[in-house]
Amino acid sequence: MRVHVAFTPDEGSVAPTGVVVDVIRATSTICQALASGYERVYCAAEVEDARRLRDELDGVTLGGERLGLRIDGFDLGNSPAEYLEPRSSVVSMSTTNGTRAIVAAGELCERVLVASLLNLDAVVEAVRSHGEDVAVFCAGVKGAFALDDAYVAGRIAGLLGGERSDAAEAAVRLAASFGTAEEAFRQSRSGRNLINHGSELEADIPYCARESVLAVVPRLQRMRGVAAEIAL
Amino acid sequence: MRVHVAFTPDEGSVAPTGVVVDVIRATSTICQALASGYERVYCAAEVEDARRLRDELDGVTLGGERLGLRIDGFDLGNSPAEYLEPRSSVVSMSTTNGTRAIVAAGELCERVLVASLLNLDAVVEAVRSHGEDVAVFCAGVKGAFALDDAYVAGRIAGLLGGERSDAAEAAVRLAASFGTAEEAFRQSRSGRNLINHGSELEADIPYCARESVLAVVPRLQRMRGVAAEIAL
Repeated sequence: MRVHVAFTPDEGSVAPTGVVVDVIRATSTICQALASGYERVYCAAEVEDARRLRDELDGVTLGGERLGLRIDGFDLGNSPAEYLEPRSSVVSMSTTNGTRAIVAAGELCERVLVASLLNLDAVVEAVRSHGEDVAVFCAGVKGAFALDDAYVAGRIAGLLGGERSDAAEAAVRLAASFGTAEEAFRQSRSGRNLINHGSELEADIPYCARESVLAVVPRLQRMRGVAAEIAL
Repeated sequence: MRVHVAFTPDEGSVAPTGVVVDVIRATSTICQALASGYERVYCAAEVEDARRLRDELDGVTLGGERLGLRIDGFDLGNSPAEYLEPRSSVVSMSTTNGTRAIVAAGELCERVLVASLLNLDAVVEAVRSHGEDVAVFCAGVKGAFALDDAYVAGRIAGLLGGERSDAAEAAVRLAASFGTAEEAFRQSRSGRNLINHGSELEADIPYCARESVLAVVPRLQRMRGVAAEIAL
């Protein structure tokens, strides 16, 4: 099995299996929402696209944030801890970086899995069960490298073994340079943004740094317009 | 001083000072050629563009390789050790990844310096003397992440200190994970390509892994058509 890591969505690589990481916080929230009992999560880059899905479908919870604050008129923000009790069957999320990475992976891969640390072992097991080459797509921040996503990609690549691309080898070494996931997240730009927003959002860092506490493997099912439909 | 690393030319970042790394082997060869007494090096992506410069200018040595072999009709390959004795005042090189990175940096930065390990200390000193934010551009391989270039970027960022972007922090940690530069280069795809071509090209690995043996700081002077003109 060849294992590659794309540190930004634009350097995507063709592979049968794609794994998308936006660990702070979109893919952690998607994993938590589906593990909690939501049936589907739609991811759209724009706020208006997320809102439109609520108008088109029944029983939709709107989630997302801009600059750390819940979007006006939305039911929930983007903290995974807000998704422990399902309010409906469907979540419609607005998440720019996460959506971009999921869409990029969907165009290059036969199957796309959604990964965080929360479901680390489950994702690694699913990739192994397919037995084919894999590319891990880091969502990054506005197209740029993000330390938190690269850390998780390195953890996934390290557990998978196989034949590593230069980027996969670098990711594995990067992950090994941190004592804990929380240390990596706190040093990342995304983590520092949460810290700067106060203790409520800062609590998402240790939450997202927990490993293999959820057995779910969310998958891209299809695109619905510009929104990616994710389910188990 | 803010320090950023672009692991691929496409993720370029605007900064006053740009530093380009294509350590195996274009930027090592450029440093060696100018330290040896060549006055200018032109870098062009295409073989025909390098040839055209020889027709347009007097006293041009043609250098470059494809798939490890000297290009048909060219005077020299792409081993820095071939550039110890000047054969003329000007070198016209065909190098795809290196040219792409230099051109990308030239569009985003006020000044562009050419770096390898051979001139590590000299480049770091020059960046410090400008005192402005810096972006290190890794040439990579066909647009993808390259371990050898990322290693050198991490060495540069580590010596510079300053305020690191996520990518710069990752590069510093990656570099620190290797015992020596040669170890990093041998593990990279570019290094393995040289090894697979036999002992003559493999010898370029320890050659390019020598640190701060040249005091030159090559700079992008201007574009001449599609070719980048590099001089001290």
